[in-house]
Amino acid sequence: MARITIADIARRAGVSTGAVSYALNDRPGVSKETRERILSIAAELGWAPSQAARSLSGARAETVGLILARDPHTLGYESFYMQFVAGIESELATRSYGLLLQVVEDLDAEVQAYRRWRAARRVDGVVVVDPRAVDPRVELLAERDALPAVVVGDPSLAGGLTSVWTDDAAAMRESVRYLADLGHTRIGRVSGVEDFGHTHIRDVAFTDEATSRGVQAVVRRTDFSPERGAEATRRFLDGPDAVTAIVYDNDVMALAGLGAAHEVGVRVPQDVSLVAWDDSPLCLAAFPQLTALSHDVTSYGAHVARRLFERMGGARPGSYLDSTPTLKVRGTTAPPAR
Amino acid sequence: MARITIADIARRAGVSTGAVSYALNDRPGVSKETRERILSIAAELGWAPSQAARSLSGARAETVGLILARDPHTLGYESFYMQFVAGIESELATRSYGLLLQVVEDLDAEVQAYRRWRAARRVDGVVVVDPRAVDPRVELLAERDALPAVVVGDPSLAGGLTSVWTDDAAAMRESVRYLADLGHTRIGRVSGVEDFGHTHIRDVAFTDEATSRGVQAVVRRTDFSPERGAEATRRFLDGPDAVTAIVYDNDVMALAGLGAAHEVGVRVPQDVSLVAWDDSPLCLAAFPQLTALSHDVTSYGAHVARRLFERMGGARPGSYLDSTPTLKVRGTTAPPAR
Repeated sequence: MARITIADIARRAGVSTGAVSYALNDRPGVSKETRERILSIAAELGWAPSQAARSLSGARAETVGLILARDPHTLGYESFYMQFVAGIESELATRSYGLLLQVVEDLDAEVQAYRRWRAARRVDGVVVVDPRAVDPRVELLAERDALPAVVVGDPSLAGGLTSVWTDDAAAMRESVRYLADLGHTRIGRVSGVEDFGHTHIRDVAFTDEATSRGVQAVVRRTDFSPERGAEATRRFLDGPDAVTAIVYDNDVMALAGLGAAHEVGVRVPQDVSLVAWDDSPLCLAAFPQLTALSHDVTSYGAHVARRLFERMGGARPGSYLDSTPTLKVRGTTAPPAR
Repeated sequence: MARITIADIARRAGVSTGAVSYALNDRPGVSKETRERILSIAAELGWAPSQAARSLSGARAETVGLILARDPHTLGYESFYMQFVAGIESELATRSYGLLLQVVEDLDAEVQAYRRWRAARRVDGVVVVDPRAVDPRVELLAERDALPAVVVGDPSLAGGLTSVWTDDAAAMRESVRYLADLGHTRIGRVSGVEDFGHTHIRDVAFTDEATSRGVQAVVRRTDFSPERGAEATRRFLDGPDAVTAIVYDNDVMALAGLGAAHEVGVRVPQDVSLVAWDDSPLCLAAFPQLTALSHDVTSYGAHVARRLFERMGGARPGSYLDSTPTLKVRGTTAPPAR
């Protein structure tokens, strides 16, 4: 497939290269009919302005960047990221934008990648995920002339950048209230990675709401993997201090917890109640179907992409509440056994 | 963040811009010490050659492309793609390459995107997934001077391009043999999307092996979603012609099928045996744990990326068998009830 040039289009259309240039750049100098014929031939030949020429002229890369500072092997665990990426893509696809996805080792590498992307004009804007309480990425992207960015997370973590967030604290409080109202007096939380800002926000809401209801709250940390989710569940089920209800930080850990309970003969929901976070087809596929904090992650991703396009178009930073995850009560929660 | 230029580096290093250029392009003309100092300052300042300058000089985009011609909303269903992308990223990350991920409506749009990417030098090579029996992408990428490509699928579908594949036919035959040996005489297959080449290969192996064993084989098509997987399962469980074993085309449909069986009071594995394809943490999290055709999808993605780097480096096309999925027998398969 040879590279298509303006000369190729001119030859095929039987016009000068100048006429092609006028038509492609939407400038006066050619008739409407000629312009349309030239554009149609250009499309047919698969012509696209070279990235080089566009970059030199200050044009857009038509690419949005997303960096995940995670061990790539753990990415397959969670349906969250694929659904989130799918949502971003649903907005990008209508504009023929691409998503430049890169996995890096840590936040320093992520910061370096943003610098490189900015310098090489590889992307027009970036989506920043998993914000931390102190976050070098937010500091970098808040500089003057930085890449346009949208932070996916609580505005308190976004350092004045545009953010799109879900009210995780309110959702967590709703779950704890629901379990307390059912009569549970000792509740466990299978929590995620400690230095993620949203983990901390959920931790605080969990213990705070439990305390205010006179409920004992116990938190166990994991790496979000089903293996650690199952292990944390087994520890919550065992011994005299066992809990009667568990709230998980994602869907696969809840599913693994359900499996672990079945395995040791603990009945769900008669002996223990389970609540998943990030409702997904998996929660519906489980038996019993998992009670879950439900949130349309695909639509969340699409919302983030729309705000990024606004930002790249010159809009000022703002904070946008996407939604508050709502509790879908299904088969894995019930009053505790007497 | 201002754009870093060669002049900035020269100023900081106290040398001429010519010396910086020699050092950055690894050409003689500066001492080893000066070169190292310049490179260190360039790294510190976050300098990167502009994409524009690199493209004009024929340098690499340091980006690999992956296009998924699917409804973006269905992408969240399957853990396959996230694990596969994670595997690709594990190889890209070590080379500081990015993955340009784009979701398009259909194969025509995918072909157009390849043309645009090629013309604009957006990527150095592409990974082609879900090959069809007649595939316009393969035709395009087999042209002279086309983008380097690796097809993920059977060599019979790759049109002479480099391919990395798993022996799905052998894996399917193994499952059918295993179920036949257990005593099942009527087996169902919950199949995927019809025009995917691998769906056809599995269909043929399924019915062929069943026939040669004197086993009745019934195929139901789905769109890979858990909803359709559950629905197909309910139809397989109902009525006088019900099957006693079901082989699924992915993991979420098998999980949904397990849920559907529980729901209607059909015991697994006593009343019906279930086999999943694409073993995943979900299969282990289910109860009973799902018998599955196990295949390390993350390592498959990494293998594909390595072959693409070889191809981009000038290696000739070849076909590489990644592995044959192996049957992991767990809790959802047993002899049929008498």
